[in-house]
Amino acid sequence: FVLLTFCTPKEETADVLSEKSIQPELLSWNEGKSKSAIMDFVEKAVDANSPDFVPVADRIAVFDNDGTLWSEQPMYFQLAFALDEIKRMAPEHPEWKTTPPFSDLLNGDVQKFMSEEKNLFMLMANTHANMGTDEFDMRVKEWMKTAVHPKTGKHYNEMIFQPMLELLEYLRAHEFKTFIVSGGGIDFMRAWTEEAYGIPPYQVVGSLFGLAYIDSTATPELIKIPELFFNDDKGGKPVGIHRNIGKRPVFAGGNSDGDYQMLQYTSTGSGPRFGMYVHHTDSVREYAYDRNSSIGRLNKGLDDASKYGWLIVDMAKDWKVIYPFDKQ
Amino acid sequence: FVLLTFCTPKEETADVLSEKSIQPELLSWNEGKSKSAIMDFVEKAVDANSPDFVPVADRIAVFDNDGTLWSEQPMYFQLAFALDEIKRMAPEHPEWKTTPPFSDLLNGDVQKFMSEEKNLFMLMANTHANMGTDEFDMRVKEWMKTAVHPKTGKHYNEMIFQPMLELLEYLRAHEFKTFIVSGGGIDFMRAWTEEAYGIPPYQVVGSLFGLAYIDSTATPELIKIPELFFNDDKGGKPVGIHRNIGKRPVFAGGNSDGDYQMLQYTSTGSGPRFGMYVHHTDSVREYAYDRNSSIGRLNKGLDDASKYGWLIVDMAKDWKVIYPFDKQ
Ligand SMILES: [Ca+2]
Ligand SMILES: [Ca+2]
Repeated sequence: FVLLTFCTPKEETADVLSEKSIQPELLSWNEGKSKSAIMDFVEKAVDANSPDFVPVADRIAVFDNDGTLWSEQPMYFQLAFALDEIKRMAPEHPEWKTTPPFSDLLNGDVQKFMSEEKNLFMLMANTHANMGTDEFDMRVKEWMKTAVHPKTGKHYNEMIFQPMLELLEYLRAHEFKTFIVSGGGIDFMRAWTEEAYGIPPYQVVGSLFGLAYIDSTATPELIKIPELFFNDDKGGKPVGIHRNIGKRPVFAGGNSDGDYQMLQYTSTGSGPRFGMYVHHTDSVREYAYDRNSSIGRLNKGLDDASKYGWLIVDMAKDWKVIYPFDKQ
Repeated sequence: FVLLTFCTPKEETADVLSEKSIQPELLSWNEGKSKSAIMDFVEKAVDANSPDFVPVADRIAVFDNDGTLWSEQPMYFQLAFALDEIKRMAPEHPEWKTTPPFSDLLNGDVQKFMSEEKNLFMLMANTHANMGTDEFDMRVKEWMKTAVHPKTGKHYNEMIFQPMLELLEYLRAHEFKTFIVSGGGIDFMRAWTEEAYGIPPYQVVGSLFGLAYIDSTATPELIKIPELFFNDDKGGKPVGIHRNIGKRPVFAGGNSDGDYQMLQYTSTGSGPRFGMYVHHTDSVREYAYDRNSSIGRLNKGLDDASKYGWLIVDMAKDWKVIYPFDKQ
């Protein structure tokens, strides 16, 4: 034993250990078709002798966020944020308590409030606009620290999918650049996605509000304008990808028909491509929904998955755990 | 000599050499205030014990392109591309030869053609739109390979500034992320900026045309629409930075009043910041112009440089060479 220690220089041991610890594996994925398909694609992509090799500069992987990287039930978490913000701000707006539509909200009738589209616009205008981007960022961060999910009692940024975290790290370890391409608001995501997923703000693509640069004060800032400037959903996703990334991805993951065009755009490029849908099949550990859901409807995508060769990940079957806090 | 070779293992020699060669220096910058100011900022930014330390995640550096990273005289190079494209396409459009406004262009009266704003729109619509993004990319690449600058006889992508290339590499070696933030068209730039500057497409921010995702064919693609969707200039630059980068930069470089807001947005953030203007003072090796130029006018920026602490780089005095081909 002493001899062995003596013969192995300290530095070498450290190197071997750190190399091991930085090589991520898909530990929360059960063995099977899904895990094999992902690993098979990636192993060929990095093998310079494979006909399915992908040059490093082309290793662009894009992921939807809601329902793909984190949960989205019983309502989009960004919507939960907006509703909570109205409650938080209510004391400064005593008129809300008695005047519709906010009175409906504050009196607990979310259904009624949400039934009119113009109310959604008012909701966003009051919680996502008419303030600086720094102020908004701070509000999202504050909410993340305090609000909890009605079913799990966990903070929303804890309800990210452990197997997808491992997939992101696995891809990055193989020199893929990982991007979020979400219908969610870009500023809402950037407030927490770097910490949660290791994805920096400049690799987040999302829906855009208007923005105005105001330099009339000593500290010029960007003010969020209550208008939808760009909707990063459906056919908007390839547009958002082109504008913020500038390359057709080789790997795309989504969970709904809103991702159909992103997966299609990815899969129909030349050379090796990988498309996958996260299928919400786990009513016990998460939620089960697809063709008839108003949130995250997955219908056309299921129909056409085999046509495009998309992998359908079965959350109940393929994933050992759902959330990081499920790990023992 | 033999003993020395024997005593130094091959690997170690290689390591030392490669370490030396990857540590970029500002070799084409003359010693003086400008070079010192840049190095002083960067050395403190990476020194964890300095009060002016900048965490790696915040090391965002943004640069204008036209007149900052490459030349822009006697006309914006993107405009030269558009005019050349009209000439290249003319045989397919025999009516252009006799019908204004393109007849003016084809008969050599660029001045007359450019005097009407609607002509510029027609020029862009015919050369920058109504085609897929892949087709446009190919056209720009083809033009870069063939067209030459009227004064230097060099290809346009050779007319990049050697000292700025060194600055980009120097910043990246110190773990800055380098971005282009230009009023130029994003697709025009991305066709050549990765090769020229080592800046990947997802780190290029620019002006945007409309884009439509068309999936009626077997290979769905993005079609460029002849409308200006976003003008990444002046107050648009901070907006473009927020949308594509998502962080207030700590380092910004420009050359005209179109960069004023970008430098201001950068400089007025808290903590250490660096703003610089490239001042075109070299009528012999490049061009000399500032306050009264129609291209790259630098007027307000010069007035307010000391107020914001911006460095004014004097091309004639501070730069040993202008272009890479000037190096012996
Ligand atoms: Ca989704
Ligand atoms: Ca410029």
